[in-house]
Amino acid sequence: MGRYPPSLENLIRRLSRLPGIGEKSATRIAIHLLQSRGNIKKELAGAILDVADKVGRCRVCHNLAEGGLCRICEDPSRDGSLLCVVETEGDLMALEEAGAFKGRYHVLMGTIDPLSGVGPDDLTIPGMKERLAQGAITEVILALNPSTQGEATSTYLENMLRDMGVSLTRIAYGLPAGGDLKYADQVTIKRCLEGRTKL
Amino acid sequence: MGRYPPSLENLIRRLSRLPGIGEKSATRIAIHLLQSRGNIKKELAGAILDVADKVGRCRVCHNLAEGGLCRICEDPSRDGSLLCVVETEGDLMALEEAGAFKGRYHVLMGTIDPLSGVGPDDLTIPGMKERLAQGAITEVILALNPSTQGEATSTYLENMLRDMGVSLTRIAYGLPAGGDLKYADQVTIKRCLEGRTKL
Repeated sequence: MGRYPPSLENLIRRLSRLPGIGEKSATRIAIHLLQSRGNIKKELAGAILDVADKVGRCRVCHNLAEGGLCRICEDPSRDGSLLCVVETEGDLMALEEAGAFKGRYHVLMGTIDPLSGVGPDDLTIPGMKERLAQGAITEVILALNPSTQGEATSTYLENMLRDMGVSLTRIAYGLPAGGDLKYADQVTIKRCLEGRTKL
Repeated sequence: MGRYPPSLENLIRRLSRLPGIGEKSATRIAIHLLQSRGNIKKELAGAILDVADKVGRCRVCHNLAEGGLCRICEDPSRDGSLLCVVETEGDLMALEEAGAFKGRYHVLMGTIDPLSGVGPDDLTIPGMKERLAQGAITEVILALNPSTQGEATSTYLENMLRDMGVSLTRIAYGLPAGGDLKYADQVTIKRCLEGRTKL
């Protein structure tokens, strides 16, 4: 027997399954919702269902989109000759927030992972080939994460793209801003040295 | 122009209004929900609406309840001769979690606050009088918070209950467990001294 009425317990249980929300926060949020006036509960429930109905994938780059094209593919001010390849829309968003890239993206929707049975055709790689075949793209920047799968996928893409007549780069791996060699892991230190640039 | 599709931005905005949830957590939760499979979104939305529809107040003690009586008033093992008076169901829940009280409760639904125009009859004090008139209650424990309004309400209740033939007590105010006189505020120290008990 829980301490709260069943439907409140139910809401607390569901809220506490969300990322970063423990039972205490879930209880606080549930009671806040319960005590909220006006249409707050209805609007939140509606917003959750709306997201399910309306948000899909951009048909060009597979970023999150409402309608056929995402905001970046729709934006005529973005440089169509630069293509940045990322694993997920979360990586895309982090790059956007840094504001350092003004080209377009391609979201792979994952990484190649043979052990889990994920091959190149399970990702959005076929669509990327089509985009490259249209000829507008002159540079591809691989911005995959420095993990085993990210690197395997980078290597696969590197081999695939080498003979496609585009300039091919990858983002730098090294010591992060504010980082400290003393506390950096060995792999990062190795990459700091490998990726050293001439002064 | 936001970074995300409009309905996702809408969900993020609504989530970030919940207590303890900032924009970063709201974004994380919204994307988690967006990517969740099965009925998770529908069930969460349903749980939010359910709480609005189903959870009300216990008709006896004004605790949260589904149906007419709350779980404590329904429970025959609770001691009906002891009545603990609290400001809100949050205070009730804290007492329940401590597990130190086996009587019944009365939730005032606030405190007397003349400046905001809240008088005794705006709280559940009339209902409490009726409960006392039934004669089963022999001790009333005032468990209001040590704030200006809490104390004003305690004083009001003390005067009201003095001649009703029940034993009247209030919870102890003093140094909390793990507290330290060095760091305690002056009001708490004053209460520690006032409330000293003979050894």
